[in-house]
Amino acid sequence: MTKKPLILVTNDDGVTAPGIKALIAAMKPLGEVVVVAPDSPQSGMGHAITVNSTLYVEKLDNEQNIYTCSGTPADCVKIAINEILKRKPDLCVSGINHGSNSSINVIYSGTMSAAIEAGIEGIPAIGFSLLDYSWNANFEAAAIYARKIASTVIENKLPEGVILNVNIPNLQEKDIKGIKISRQAKANWVEEFDKRVNPMGREYYWLTGKFVDLDKGEDTDEWALKNNHVSVVPVQYDLTAHHYIQTLNSWDFNG
Amino acid sequence: MTKKPLILVTNDDGVTAPGIKALIAAMKPLGEVVVVAPDSPQSGMGHAITVNSTLYVEKLDNEQNIYTCSGTPADCVKIAINEILKRKPDLCVSGINHGSNSSINVIYSGTMSAAIEAGIEGIPAIGFSLLDYSWNANFEAAAIYARKIASTVIENKLPEGVILNVNIPNLQEKDIKGIKISRQAKANWVEEFDKRVNPMGREYYWLTGKFVDLDKGEDTDEWALKNNHVSVVPVQYDLTAHHYIQTLNSWDFNG
Repeated sequence: MTKKPLILVTNDDGVTAPGIKALIAAMKPLGEVVVVAPDSPQSGMGHAITVNSTLYVEKLDNEQNIYTCSGTPADCVKIAINEILKRKPDLCVSGINHGSNSSINVIYSGTMSAAIEAGIEGIPAIGFSLLDYSWNANFEAAAIYARKIASTVIENKLPEGVILNVNIPNLQEKDIKGIKISRQAKANWVEEFDKRVNPMGREYYWLTGKFVDLDKGEDTDEWALKNNHVSVVPVQYDLTAHHYIQTLNSWDFNG
Repeated sequence: MTKKPLILVTNDDGVTAPGIKALIAAMKPLGEVVVVAPDSPQSGMGHAITVNSTLYVEKLDNEQNIYTCSGTPADCVKIAINEILKRKPDLCVSGINHGSNSSINVIYSGTMSAAIEAGIEGIPAIGFSLLDYSWNANFEAAAIYARKIASTVIENKLPEGVILNVNIPNLQEKDIKGIKISRQAKANWVEEFDKRVNPMGREYYWLTGKFVDLDKGEDTDEWALKNNHVSVVPVQYDLTAHHYIQTLNSWDFNG
């Protein structure tokens, strides 16, 4: 008899978020689920790790194997693998994030940093995000797709160095046109800083911004999402711009 | 008469770090320098941004154009470009980091996240790191190479989407064998968590680990550094694993 797959669940919105609850429920039929998630929201944490401070771990729920960690999403994955889990998980899923992590958002995403950290540790990993920022978002369709994609990854595995970034449009299941394998769109944020004065008379800023997608391609995650598909982008942590090595070799640095 | 290049200097060790002082001095002969750096150390911050909190900016030094920001390295770049600088900088340099950002460390690096953020905003950008973690590191040789490389980038520009990750061995200038264009080595950290008990009897962890380089290539940044070269890796923020799109397209997600 083969063992049930061991599935590590984490996120960046924290253990109390409805999104992770939907993901836990979606993973239960696929294997043994262990949750190690931040004890507070960590959005926008990028690939932060805790190097200059201490980490606390609490077992929140004995029956359901739910742990919280005082660190970042990447910390959660590191400590899960090294201290909490008894064997290497067969899959790590992160999310379901409240809000998009498509295109350039992957860079700022705690959800994806957890998945990427698992990938670095040699574990097939997927980050899931729903295009709805609200706490009361409807995760029904997202959970169905999360289960489908996780089950396919358990079956097919993923090669070393490849992680999946899955974004799900905020629609009912019947209105979603299926899965589209995509590339990261060339989009970015045009920042606007909202300048205010605090009660003590000191100026401060809130970071706000407008998302601008200038990519005309029909093979991007943004295109897929706008056209009611679930976007699946294979993501890598080898950041080398291999195509530019030859050009750099022709530069004269002593010129 | 052409304007002097405008150079934005930032880092992740904070405005008081000797590394950024060395970088500021190295950039002065190349153009007009403006510094916007974190008001406290931000190591291991990855590509974090401040979305759920406020940002404060202080002008620290009028003559030298030095500003501090209460946010992350990526925040510093965003607020510099949008609120502090009067025109788009010709170059953004980040560092000189106290400690390596070679191979997989690029993922966790606040130094590189600042440079990558500038790259996303369309500014040629370079992150510099010295292979010495100590506060009293000797930045002499690193500063010489930082100036050489920055000056070459100002001249040649960088294409959209490419940022340089420069690591400098901890050697005197005469012992450095020059610059080697490299790729990111396939290396990683094997974590070890140091478990302790606090005075109140509660367990906590410190994250420690061992760096393991399993990459045998002689074209990697690790190889270059071990062989006394300055490594220069072109880095991109398009994380798409383009080579894997075709395989994913052959998967049956409804199987």
